Amino acid sequence: MMYNDQNIFAKIIRGELPVIKIYEDDKTLAFMDIMPQADGHALVIPKTSAVTLLDLPGDDAAYTIQIVQKVARAIEKALDKQGIILMQLSGEAAGQTVPHVHFHLIPSNVHQLGKHAAQMGDQDKIKAFAEQIKAVLDA
Amino acid sequence: MMYNDQNIFAKIIRGELPVIKIYEDDKTLAFMDIMPQADGHALVIPKTSAVTLLDLPGDDAAYTIQIVQKVARAIEKALDKQGIILMQLSGEAAGQTVPHVHFHLIPSNVHQLGKHAAQMGDQDKIKAFAEQIKAVLDA
Repeated sequence: MMYNDQNIFAKIIRGELPVIKIYEDDKTLAFMDIMPQADGHALVIPKTSAVTLLDLPGDDAAYTIQIVQKVARAIEKALDKQGIILMQLSGEAAGQTVPHVHFHLIPSNVHQLGKHAAQMGDQDKIKAFAEQIKAVLDA
Repeated sequence: MMYNDQNIFAKIIRGELPVIKIYEDDKTLAFMDIMPQADGHALVIPKTSAVTLLDLPGDDAAYTIQIVQKVARAIEKALDKQGIILMQLSGEAAGQTVPHVHFHLIPSNVHQLGKHAAQMGDQDKIKAFAEQIKAVLDA
């Protein structure tokens, strides 16, 4: 699929838009979802320009999933959660809203999941969760 | 988390339970979900004994996600689908029902997703989808 480098995650990667960052390295970025479906909802993205997981080079997928694991463990530990939903939507038809591949980590139960990208969350609360998660990741 | 080698996916890996298989190699197995949330709903699992994605060694996660990509591309092509949901539930609290790490690939829209593991599907229909997907994977 054709990649549009003006999508909001591309701008976030380039530092052109603010974000509540929890992890960054040369290949990936993790930050809080500002429209969380549960407390602690975070996103992990590869920096590679790819629209969906199906477009992403295998090496990037292999690296990113390990950062997904790392961030998921940190969320569980930091927020004392027992279960985490990993969700990744490929394609508008699946409900993907930002055309840059992203992995959702949602500490919630699949049967209680809030509606995807439905409403803005309390940004101060989100920042507080981010600080807790970062503290674990930086430990 | 403690792994119970009597869980149904462990039995499937050992060949002790029947399964509608679409892909297998020495490290992973992909098969149709018998309680599908949409037509073409498939599962990809690492053969490594791990309960959740958080327990899975990074190398296994890295390999398995590339098989997830491969199977997802095959589902889209075989069933002429435009969007795919990747869902992976870690922990009973998240809604995980079988205690062996598994990745769901569901060709559907997140807003139309059927209830997780709610009811048995039409097994003949599922087998027909499996044949279509296998044909692409084997091509």
